[in-house]
Amino acid sequence: MSDQMYRVALASRPDGAPKPENFSYEAAETPVPDDGEVLVRVHYMSLDPYMRGRMDDAESYSAPVPVGGTMEAGAVGEVIASNSPDFKPGDYAFGMFGWATHGCLPAKMLRKVDPTQGPITASLGVLGMPGFTGWYGFTQIGKPKAGETLVVAAATGPVGSMVGQVAKSMGLRAVGIAGGADKCKLAVEKFGFDACLDHRAYDTASDLRKALKAECPDGIDIYFENVGGKVLEAVMPMMNAFGRIPICGMISWYNAGGLGADATDQGLTAPKLWRTILVKFLTANGFIISNHFDVYPQFISEIAPKVASGDIAFLEDIAEGLENAPEAFMSMLKGGNMGKQIVKVI
Amino acid sequence: MSDQMYRVALASRPDGAPKPENFSYEAAETPVPDDGEVLVRVHYMSLDPYMRGRMDDAESYSAPVPVGGTMEAGAVGEVIASNSPDFKPGDYAFGMFGWATHGCLPAKMLRKVDPTQGPITASLGVLGMPGFTGWYGFTQIGKPKAGETLVVAAATGPVGSMVGQVAKSMGLRAVGIAGGADKCKLAVEKFGFDACLDHRAYDTASDLRKALKAECPDGIDIYFENVGGKVLEAVMPMMNAFGRIPICGMISWYNAGGLGADATDQGLTAPKLWRTILVKFLTANGFIISNHFDVYPQFISEIAPKVASGDIAFLEDIAEGLENAPEAFMSMLKGGNMGKQIVKVI
Repeated sequence: MSDQMYRVALASRPDGAPKPENFSYEAAETPVPDDGEVLVRVHYMSLDPYMRGRMDDAESYSAPVPVGGTMEAGAVGEVIASNSPDFKPGDYAFGMFGWATHGCLPAKMLRKVDPTQGPITASLGVLGMPGFTGWYGFTQIGKPKAGETLVVAAATGPVGSMVGQVAKSMGLRAVGIAGGADKCKLAVEKFGFDACLDHRAYDTASDLRKALKAECPDGIDIYFENVGGKVLEAVMPMMNAFGRIPICGMISWYNAGGLGADATDQGLTAPKLWRTILVKFLTANGFIISNHFDVYPQFISEIAPKVASGDIAFLEDIAEGLENAPEAFMSMLKGGNMGKQIVKVI
Repeated sequence: MSDQMYRVALASRPDGAPKPENFSYEAAETPVPDDGEVLVRVHYMSLDPYMRGRMDDAESYSAPVPVGGTMEAGAVGEVIASNSPDFKPGDYAFGMFGWATHGCLPAKMLRKVDPTQGPITASLGVLGMPGFTGWYGFTQIGKPKAGETLVVAAATGPVGSMVGQVAKSMGLRAVGIAGGADKCKLAVEKFGFDACLDHRAYDTASDLRKALKAECPDGIDIYFENVGGKVLEAVMPMMNAFGRIPICGMISWYNAGGLGADATDQGLTAPKLWRTILVKFLTANGFIISNHFDVYPQFISEIAPKVASGDIAFLEDIAEGLENAPEAFMSMLKGGNMGKQIVKVI
């Protein structure tokens, strides 16, 4: 176990899709834990679409990463030094350690992870922020009822696959959308979606909508929104009256300059979007899961046993080495990953 | 009281703003009430922005008026013949009689109006659909809390003036937007808004936003949406986290070809609108009041006494003669009315 720390910093802000030169892999001084702090040697780090937003200097729910600052990430690892009675060396902890080999945070900002209860990587995906996001948005905002129809994109990702599986367990029809025939097969066979459409097979929102109509004969009651763009445009006219749209992301628009003044979409105008909300009596509700950790215990008590029993499946895509995190991240933004994207740091 | 009925039919569908030739004032056969039906001689008819939507052949919550069909409207008048035990000649009733001097409907589709409890025109405005829309959207969807800030446009209209007055009574800061200095003065002096901005005084959404910022120093918690367009664009970046947007209309966009494929707005794109809902954790919720008549008794029991006591003010703009309804309607869509637009039919 080396004491030399490495990190990935934001070298410059991307213009559109991030490029290798926007990142800088560099040595850093390993921090020494202060009173109440814990030093962790990171084993696995999470890569998530929201990180693209942090690279822009646009107003959002979180401050942007400053140029020169360490890229933000949740990660899990082993405690190697502790100035807190709550953690001792050898414990495993989850925290926002960033894209780095080591992280030092106050104990109260860490969550203990029990490595005997399953792979510690689950704390980054199925039982971590993405799984919780899917469960919360679907059950608490989506207000599902048996017999209704759910649509979610990125269906094999850690959010979409949770949404689809919870939907099926509650008696809904679950229709996924994913990029590529292999992902669509996986969505149906591993995650139990009733159907999954390959958005790459449809050039326009209207073509995608035609295919969706065949799979959603009763319309759509819940659209769990994590992509925006063509999928949103295809889905909106199919929403049933009183439908719900939990919005946790819009990855297809993340590279559009932070959705600044020049961000546009080909076919979907603001008036059309707004009018559909009105005339279908829809509820569109943005959320970020960090505001809702008060119900995290409920999520864990419901879902962790199902993960342990195999009733909730999950899939991880693990890249090797912190120095390869930028490449894995850039690939993930283009849909190159298959399952929850993780980086093995040690 | 003449038995000759007149009506205003939709002569042709408008392209943009309605023109006189889109309407046809004509004689019609006075209907004879069937079993359970009631014939009413209309005294006052309501003109509302939603009627513009009914003139287009676009999918909405209601079917469009067919070309040649009678324009739709709520109206109040005196029963002149009844085949129902629930109504007798001389009673007053509200119903969807349309743009017509007479209306014949099943008794169960009518609401009795007591002319001794105030002007019967109140059933079209402050105690009717518009007032109920404002009260319902603000209290039930807006979920107001004392100390928050509300913004509503068309502040002197029957919806906006109800929203503003209820907001003030619940301890919120109420900022109105209206077209013209005289309406802004009225909003403050008659309806008690803390401030009211003249949207015509600001060429761009960004100029309007600057002025709004001065009047909403703590941001906006509830935006009661009835106009869309420039006001929506000005307001969105000012919304506070967890803000609520009840959507009951978008009059500024109603003439945009029914918001069909070519409807666009200059500055507000779909991605920007959607992103703001996400990053501010907003709830945008479309509604039409006809879905919520189960709570109408609660509205009446709360608001009717306040109207009687003068604690809730209202203002009516009454045009004379059914034949002048098209002109009054076209003027109202351009903001030419001052208060609830009504047509005196008899």
